Amino acid sequence: MAFKYARRMERIKASEIRELLKLTAKPEIISFAGGLPASELFPVNEMIEISKKVLEENGAQAMQYGQTEGFLPLREEITKRMKRGKADVLPEEILVTNGSQQGLDFSARLFINPGDTIVLEKPSYLGAISAFKAYEPNFVDIELEADGMNMEELEETLKTVENVKFIYVIPDFQNPTGKTWSVEKRKKLIELGNKYDVVIIEDNPYGELRFEGEFLPSIKHFDTEGRVVYLGTFSKILCPGYRLGWVAASPEIVNKYTLIKQGADLQASTISQMEVAMFLKDYDIEAHIEKIKEVYKRRRDLMIKVMREEFPEEVTYTYPEGGLFTWVTLPERINSRDLAVKALEKNVAFVPGGSFYANPGHENSMRLNYSAMQDDKIVEGMKRLAVVIKEALK
Amino acid sequence: MAFKYARRMERIKASEIRELLKLTAKPEIISFAGGLPASELFPVNEMIEISKKVLEENGAQAMQYGQTEGFLPLREEITKRMKRGKADVLPEEILVTNGSQQGLDFSARLFINPGDTIVLEKPSYLGAISAFKAYEPNFVDIELEADGMNMEELEETLKTVENVKFIYVIPDFQNPTGKTWSVEKRKKLIELGNKYDVVIIEDNPYGELRFEGEFLPSIKHFDTEGRVVYLGTFSKILCPGYRLGWVAASPEIVNKYTLIKQGADLQASTISQMEVAMFLKDYDIEAHIEKIKEVYKRRRDLMIKVMREEFPEEVTYTYPEGGLFTWVTLPERINSRDLAVKALEKNVAFVPGGSFYANPGHENSMRLNYSAMQDDKIVEGMKRLAVVIKEALK
Repeated sequence: MAFKYARRMERIKASEIRELLKLTAKPEIISFAGGLPASELFPVNEMIEISKKVLEENGAQAMQYGQTEGFLPLREEITKRMKRGKADVLPEEILVTNGSQQGLDFSARLFINPGDTIVLEKPSYLGAISAFKAYEPNFVDIELEADGMNMEELEETLKTVENVKFIYVIPDFQNPTGKTWSVEKRKKLIELGNKYDVVIIEDNPYGELRFEGEFLPSIKHFDTEGRVVYLGTFSKILCPGYRLGWVAASPEIVNKYTLIKQGADLQASTISQMEVAMFLKDYDIEAHIEKIKEVYKRRRDLMIKVMREEFPEEVTYTYPEGGLFTWVTLPERINSRDLAVKALEKNVAFVPGGSFYANPGHENSMRLNYSAMQDDKIVEGMKRLAVVIKEALK
Repeated sequence: MAFKYARRMERIKASEIRELLKLTAKPEIISFAGGLPASELFPVNEMIEISKKVLEENGAQAMQYGQTEGFLPLREEITKRMKRGKADVLPEEILVTNGSQQGLDFSARLFINPGDTIVLEKPSYLGAISAFKAYEPNFVDIELEADGMNMEELEETLKTVENVKFIYVIPDFQNPTGKTWSVEKRKKLIELGNKYDVVIIEDNPYGELRFEGEFLPSIKHFDTEGRVVYLGTFSKILCPGYRLGWVAASPEIVNKYTLIKQGADLQASTISQMEVAMFLKDYDIEAHIEKIKEVYKRRRDLMIKVMREEFPEEVTYTYPEGGLFTWVTLPERINSRDLAVKALEKNVAFVPGGSFYANPGHENSMRLNYSAMQDDKIVEGMKRLAVVIKEALK
């Protein structure tokens, strides 16, 4: 049979990462490919206590339908967490979603007509690019420098391109590059958003995982006109298995997201929301985040050390001050997709950088994740990768 | 600020039911409005045991990312459940979704270009109509008789209307009418689907809740060409709070749904999937469903009894052999939205029937839910409703 699908399906392809992750499930593979948090750090014992308490105290409520907006005590806890990034939002400005991936999908659904333009970083998060693609936008990607987008290029784009519906940025420890926007560029972004009347989508899964340096205010903090939509998630500060994230936006905008959620899947899991709310309220998430940061920092250091010692000089890499990823740039003649095949032969996996470009044609980079592998595997895997790279550069 | 949203947002409105449910959360309201399962029947103690076991045995896995397709042991259990409706599907033909509402959204996303046609029952499920609307289809609704669609009208439509992408039906104890398709019409539907090369979406949340009469094979059972997409859910046979449902379809089609899921929210909750899989595998869901059926049957009987004794003769209603709803038809001069306001003054709630029509103009009906209220409240609420109706018919 050949069924007649909608036109939008022509643009939807399997995520290279999710397909790679299937391969990398084999235990002998040392994988720098996924964006998996370290599962040995999950607060399993705490969640055992919590799941019992939630069901004993409010089982009937936990297993029943709830409000589309989300469980109110969880939304209250979320507003407290957002104060860390100096974003001042109210519980009624929060919609609980199934991870921040759902926030990405809903953002495109809310703003994008076919042919509208999305402005984003070059490179940007693969999962966002593929979520957006289904809504048939044009992408204009703006060079991502060490401290954020090239703002001249951004302003030129906003001045000349029509129907720019939003600017999508990951300001802290960006996926894939690990780069962080400076305060100056955060302010300038708001200024340009206001001047050219464009919505800003701030995707911030990693901001709380800062190993060193100063904790920066979120872009939402500088928002003067309610045009910043903030996407948050518990996947990196607690765990991804509950699939809980959130959208924070002005009442007008968040109400639209809520309408979308109603039609899309009614609501996030009631019981998961109640459990995570209890963890945030009655347990020590700050201590938990400290533990995560300690481990990830050590792993970043190990990864950087091998690169410094073993990678050829023509190969450069970012030094992330937090988050889960570093970004390696190879000489232009090298295609990292070929490199990935050779690395897999040595049981090492990474994601070729080309996947992170909204518009194709950039194949000489790689994204490396350091959160998911044990220390000794990081060292061993990076050494093998160094061999593969040296071989390719010969 | 006036932000520029996508065109599809013009069609998206708040669900009347979800808005009503907010009102009806007041304890003094006797609500026949929602589609809530009876929360006093939820297997809370079993889920306390299960959540502990899952986290103790596989905590790191349960809290981590998993595959987009869903947790394999859960998909295996789902194929077993589908055998109850004589549908023979393989685990790889299943995608786990966030409730069947997500299956509805994805169905429109997969098949509908703006201007394409969806054929559906008249009336049909409000949540489906509003999920579909976001994709800008035309709706052709076909008279729903006591035993299913009017098949002549259906064939005439398929013969004459272009770009019919799918036929959406709820064959068992339909929401909102409680009607069930006969075996003959199920077969005929497949015949017409094959003849006119149209996909069939079979939405079946209530099929297992049959109080009396013969358990009928699903429409998927008669599918000869892989054109039936079956949407299932655990919301009515276990509980809605975990937000777990599924899509079952031929490999070609289910792979497309999986691609959509990847962009939409990556995957359903890992931990919820593992918990529900354990419930299905190691606990007695058949006994649990028997208990649900016993209670709902008694409540249906009570509701029907008051209607028979107290409703005026001009008012008719369906006699559902299972499920959660009965459907009341009033004389054409009565607008049930006005009636709903009067009923709320007496602290009784229901959903006006007009909301269940894809194309407007049918206001003389009401959907009544009998699963959510205790026995004595059903009797009291129905008596009050009878008074309101008699008053309106004067």
